[in-house]
Amino acid sequence: MGPVAGVDLASKIISQTLAASDQEHLPMVLCSFPDEIGDRTEYILRRQEEAGTDSPYRQERSGGGNGSPDRDPNPGSAIARILLKMEQAGVTVAGLACNSAHAPVIFDRIAHELNENRSRIGLLHMIREVGWFLTYEFTGIRKVGIAGTTGTRASGLYKLLEEFGMEVLDTTDGEQQVLHSAIYHPEYGIKAAPDGASGRAAEILTDTCRSLKQRGAQAIVFGCTEFPLAYREPVLEGLPVIDTNLVLARALVRACDPGRLRPFERGSS
Amino acid sequence: MGPVAGVDLASKIISQTLAASDQEHLPMVLCSFPDEIGDRTEYILRRQEEAGTDSPYRQERSGGGNGSPDRDPNPGSAIARILLKMEQAGVTVAGLACNSAHAPVIFDRIAHELNENRSRIGLLHMIREVGWFLTYEFTGIRKVGIAGTTGTRASGLYKLLEEFGMEVLDTTDGEQQVLHSAIYHPEYGIKAAPDGASGRAAEILTDTCRSLKQRGAQAIVFGCTEFPLAYREPVLEGLPVIDTNLVLARALVRACDPGRLRPFERGSS
Repeated sequence: MGPVAGVDLASKIISQTLAASDQEHLPMVLCSFPDEIGDRTEYILRRQEEAGTDSPYRQERSGGGNGSPDRDPNPGSAIARILLKMEQAGVTVAGLACNSAHAPVIFDRIAHELNENRSRIGLLHMIREVGWFLTYEFTGIRKVGIAGTTGTRASGLYKLLEEFGMEVLDTTDGEQQVLHSAIYHPEYGIKAAPDGASGRAAEILTDTCRSLKQRGAQAIVFGCTEFPLAYREPVLEGLPVIDTNLVLARALVRACDPGRLRPFERGSS
Repeated sequence: MGPVAGVDLASKIISQTLAASDQEHLPMVLCSFPDEIGDRTEYILRRQEEAGTDSPYRQERSGGGNGSPDRDPNPGSAIARILLKMEQAGVTVAGLACNSAHAPVIFDRIAHELNENRSRIGLLHMIREVGWFLTYEFTGIRKVGIAGTTGTRASGLYKLLEEFGMEVLDTTDGEQQVLHSAIYHPEYGIKAAPDGASGRAAEILTDTCRSLKQRGAQAIVFGCTEFPLAYREPVLEGLPVIDTNLVLARALVRACDPGRLRPFERGSS
C-alpha cells in the first residue's frame, strides 16, 4: 500500500524468479493507487476504539449499506475494487504488499467483496505465507518476535502463527510507540523519506530486535513492508530477519509457476 | 520491457514525486508482460537486414494483414495491446521503460495501433523527453554521447536530439559489440543478473564513456534502461550521466501533476 513497498514487492518477484532472459520472467501487474486507500493503522485503531473491544478477530461484514463504495472508510473496499479491476485485466494470482491490510477487519472485507462479485482471483495471505515460510525454511523456530505497525499489533493478526505451533512475541506499549515513529515520523520516518533509509529508523529496529531477543525471540518478522527499506540485511542482532515482501514474492512466483522459483538461500536477501 | 527496468521506472516515479504520506503519491500501474514482447534489438536488426536499408526513419505501417496480432513479430503490436488494456483500466498517461522500443519501426507501429483504436492515452516519447531534459537541465551541452543497445544504435533513434540543436556521438562498431555484451552476455550481462550489477558491465560502461568523451561528448546518455542498474552514479568519467528512466519518470510525474514534481538536483539520482 505504501507505494515504495509495492515496487519492492515487484522487484522481489523478479529477483526470486529463475530466468535467463526478459522473456522468461513472469507477467506481472503492479497497481499502486495510494490516494484511494486510507491509512490501514488509522482505520484499525478507530474501529477498535468505536467497538470498545480488543478482540483481534472481531469480524466485520458489509458496509451497513449507506451508499457509495467511495465513501466506505474501510480500506478493504478500495483494495477489493482494485483487485477486481486487475482480475478483469487478466490477473489470476495476487498479493497485498502491506501487513496491516491483512488485519481481519480489512482482509475479511476484501474477501467478502471479492466473493460477492464472484471473483476467482487467487489472493494470497501474506501472514499465512510467513507461517509456511518459517515452517519450511527455518524449521525449529518456536518463538517469533514481531516488529510491525501499531495497527498490525493492535489487530493481533500475527496470532495466526500460533496455528503453525509458534509463540508470538509482541513489542511492549512503549517500544511500539517508538517503532511506529520509525515508519510515520515526518522527518526520519520511512514513509516520509523512503530513499533515505534513515539511520534513526534502522537504530529503532535494532533496539526493538534486541529487546525481543532478550525475551526469547529466535527470529524477527518485519511485520511492516516498509522496514526492509531501512534495514536490508538478512540478520539483525544475530536473529534471522523475515522480510514479509520477500516471503510474499516467493509465494506469488510459486503460485504462478513453481518451476521458476529460485531456491531460498538463508542469509541472502 | 526488461522487467527490472520497469520496476526501476516505477521506483523513480515515486522518488521524483513530492509527497509526505502514502496518500499523496500518484496512482500508478506497472504492466510487465515480458513473455508477450519479443526482444526489441533482435527485431530492429532483422527488419533492417530484410529491408537492406539503414535508413533510420523508415516507416512501417500496418501488419500486411496476415492474421492474428499474436503472431505479429513487431514488438509494437504487443506493446499497443497492453497500453490499450491499461487505458481501459483508467490510465491516462504512459511511458515505455525501454529505449529500443522507441525505434521508429516499433514506436510508429504502437502509435498507429493506438490511433486505429481511437486511444486517447498520452504516450510520452522517452527520447524527446531526453531532448527537453538536456535543454533545460544541462543548458549549453552540444555534444552528447549515446551508450545504448545495438538496436537503439542501428535504428538511429537518438538523431532526434539534432532537433534540439545537439550533435549525437555514437559508439564505433567495435565498442558497440562490447557494450551490447554488457546487457546480453549470459554471465555478466545485466539482463542475466540484474541484481549483480556486475563489475564487468560497469567497466564496459566506463570504457565506452571514456572513449565518447575523448571524441568530444559533454554528457553521456545511458540509452538503455538497464545500464543504471550496473552504474548508479550521476557522473561517469567526469561527464553527467543521463538516466533515461529518471527522465521519463520526471516527465510522467509532470504530465500527471506538475505541482508534485520534485525539483531536479544535478549530481543526485
